[in-house]
Amino acid sequence: MARPKRSSPALLDRRIFLRGGLAALGAIGGLAAGAPGTARAAGPPETPPWMQYPGAPFTTYGGPAKYESKVMRTLIRSQPGTTGSGASRTPLEMLEGTITPSGLHFERHHSGVPDIDPEQHRLLVHGMVKRPLIFTMDALMRYPMRSRIHFMECSGNSQLMYGATPPALRAGELHGLVSCSEWTGVPLRLLLEEAGADPAASWLLAEGADAAAMSRSVPMAKAMDDALIALFQNGERLRPENGYPVRLFLPGYEGNMSVKWLRRIKVTATPTMTKDETSRYTDLQADGKSLMFTYPMGVKSVITRPSPGLTMPGPGLYEVSGIAWSGSGTITKVEVSADGGQTWTETTLSTPVLPRTLTRFRIPWKWNGGSAIVKSRATDSTGEMQPTRDKLVAEHGTNVVFHYNAIQAWSIAGNGEVTNVYA
Amino acid sequence: MARPKRSSPALLDRRIFLRGGLAALGAIGGLAAGAPGTARAAGPPETPPWMQYPGAPFTTYGGPAKYESKVMRTLIRSQPGTTGSGASRTPLEMLEGTITPSGLHFERHHSGVPDIDPEQHRLLVHGMVKRPLIFTMDALMRYPMRSRIHFMECSGNSQLMYGATPPALRAGELHGLVSCSEWTGVPLRLLLEEAGADPAASWLLAEGADAAAMSRSVPMAKAMDDALIALFQNGERLRPENGYPVRLFLPGYEGNMSVKWLRRIKVTATPTMTKDETSRYTDLQADGKSLMFTYPMGVKSVITRPSPGLTMPGPGLYEVSGIAWSGSGTITKVEVSADGGQTWTETTLSTPVLPRTLTRFRIPWKWNGGSAIVKSRATDSTGEMQPTRDKLVAEHGTNVVFHYNAIQAWSIAGNGEVTNVYA
Repeated sequence: MARPKRSSPALLDRRIFLRGGLAALGAIGGLAAGAPGTARAAGPPETPPWMQYPGAPFTTYGGPAKYESKVMRTLIRSQPGTTGSGASRTPLEMLEGTITPSGLHFERHHSGVPDIDPEQHRLLVHGMVKRPLIFTMDALMRYPMRSRIHFMECSGNSQLMYGATPPALRAGELHGLVSCSEWTGVPLRLLLEEAGADPAASWLLAEGADAAAMSRSVPMAKAMDDALIALFQNGERLRPENGYPVRLFLPGYEGNMSVKWLRRIKVTATPTMTKDETSRYTDLQADGKSLMFTYPMGVKSVITRPSPGLTMPGPGLYEVSGIAWSGSGTITKVEVSADGGQTWTETTLSTPVLPRTLTRFRIPWKWNGGSAIVKSRATDSTGEMQPTRDKLVAEHGTNVVFHYNAIQAWSIAGNGEVTNVYA
Repeated sequence: MARPKRSSPALLDRRIFLRGGLAALGAIGGLAAGAPGTARAAGPPETPPWMQYPGAPFTTYGGPAKYESKVMRTLIRSQPGTTGSGASRTPLEMLEGTITPSGLHFERHHSGVPDIDPEQHRLLVHGMVKRPLIFTMDALMRYPMRSRIHFMECSGNSQLMYGATPPALRAGELHGLVSCSEWTGVPLRLLLEEAGADPAASWLLAEGADAAAMSRSVPMAKAMDDALIALFQNGERLRPENGYPVRLFLPGYEGNMSVKWLRRIKVTATPTMTKDETSRYTDLQADGKSLMFTYPMGVKSVITRPSPGLTMPGPGLYEVSGIAWSGSGTITKVEVSADGGQTWTETTLSTPVLPRTLTRFRIPWKWNGGSAIVKSRATDSTGEMQPTRDKLVAEHGTNVVFHYNAIQAWSIAGNGEVTNVYA
């Protein structure tokens, strides 16, 4: 009996570039402007205009090139009658690597971005503690810090994919409520120990200083494990829309729990049952019951190139590239299919592969110019594999708007156009 | 015989925070606004003004908080008669973690920042090759990519420290021609293989599309090893001042060799001896001879907190924090002295520790309020340890302006002020 076919024939071995196989497969350069017959071997190209005059002077704080002005967060209109209640999304399909530039980190606000004076802001630690403490930002800056690269994902990310028909949107518009930064701050454990948290306390309440007073209950076990009082993002102080001057950061947990503009940690015996965890951020199931306190974000992946809006210019060699992540651990494997899921091929993960970060996967693909459906599926260190959409919907229904993590399929047409499909 | 004393008594064991030792040492919070007697245990602080009104709406591309407007690159005036010939520096003392936000990445230009239209820009690979190739940026985007976090350092970084007296400047003003990003791009090896580089060719020429036509010779061994044709920096396309739309990136090598605005790679038998490697970027020694082709940046470190400009508010517990890096490998150890170098204590390195990146080191220090001199010294995976300034000057003299990597000493006065000293 023949062994089951494990690899999509058109997907090339991920190690092929390590073996010098590229030239043999047909030069990409030759497909574009650089066909050997057209390259001028005699010397460099003509002097372009920007070499003929001195360039622009130095700047104190730089920004993107003007030619990249379309690379922006996708704005969703605020909810009626509100200011800044809604979300903006990271343009995943325009980015590469794993770090999200802070200017493009997704936003999710419940009452806009407060303008907080760091000199006036305070963090209170109180409740079931021996010594209630109030911290200025300057005091927090003296504490021991840790730096870690972690993704943050809104629990409502990808929620349009629960709908009956696949939305005609780009990767970032669909899945861009996930971003990844280097976060630096003080381990929350240190502040709780200093305050003398009661060993009988199993929870804490975290409250933000926005007009919504965004509030969530956090298990003490998480607080004592890897929770950070984050002060820096990608090297500099937090951006206003990411909680300046201080936020909670809970690696792998749904984003809203990493309370921004943090003003208060109250140590408690039980969950506080705040408005944000009863009327909001619960997961309504098909049977009418709701799941509460569904903290870690599931294992997930999405192909960012090719994806809708990035039309493929013609048959030939491409690199399929995407991101994978899991709130429960480290990505151990991402497989890609180019035949709608009949066969799967393992991709290369960009190193270092770290826990609870965006992990970039890549694999070469020789597109024959015919219609095709590409998919990716991730597996994490707990053994969890990303579910199909059918399986996710069968288990949780379509009333829920949170924790969508199903396998994403992109359909590629003969003309190179890419669309979102349920397949 | 007593064993030699290995640790500064005032520097605390780097593992102390793992053992819950902080509270026993005296609470930092208690030193600031949060002294137990002053904290109101009854409830949260009064409602601040920014909780009383909805906040600002979403933005398409975010920027730093207005309260952080002093966190900027240090501008050095351009050379007389030129535009944009000079450098701007990263404010190291204001940053934490290891990633430098791209807006604060140092700049070093030889004729300003060219305004390059990516649709018009081309990269030529020619010289000793079978098939000269011209690449559009779109063609490059189809190639297999790699992402790596690496520092970049200008070979002229810290050059003022060769002077006879220690400049009264901040850490970033002295040493801020080093930054660290996640770089994503195409391995140069792939393009050279596709072009069919002559095995007899030992070098290549890299030329930039700025008005200075910045040009350097690169050993073929480096090009075939880890050189990148970089297209993305920290997730998004390169910033203009970092080579948009495409640059060479040579991990660990002096920054000027990672030619920005790259337009041409010419495969050659020998070094081209460009103006930038004969009249510039050679290291004039005390005996009047110059060293050429001194590529890897040396092992180096600097304490960023405390450092000049960050006055210490009073005696008590602090975390000493800084960055270390080496162009030849991975940082294996950073030691800190709080007694001017008589005794040294090993610090904690923030993980993951990666080759040729900025590595954050941290250690707690209980300052007694007296005058003190703090220093850091790094060791890398080749066994090289950062030299003292005396040793560096004895070996290379003070005519040289490049490759300064000596141990940095900061003097702390009883009033908490920090100054740059030779000690």
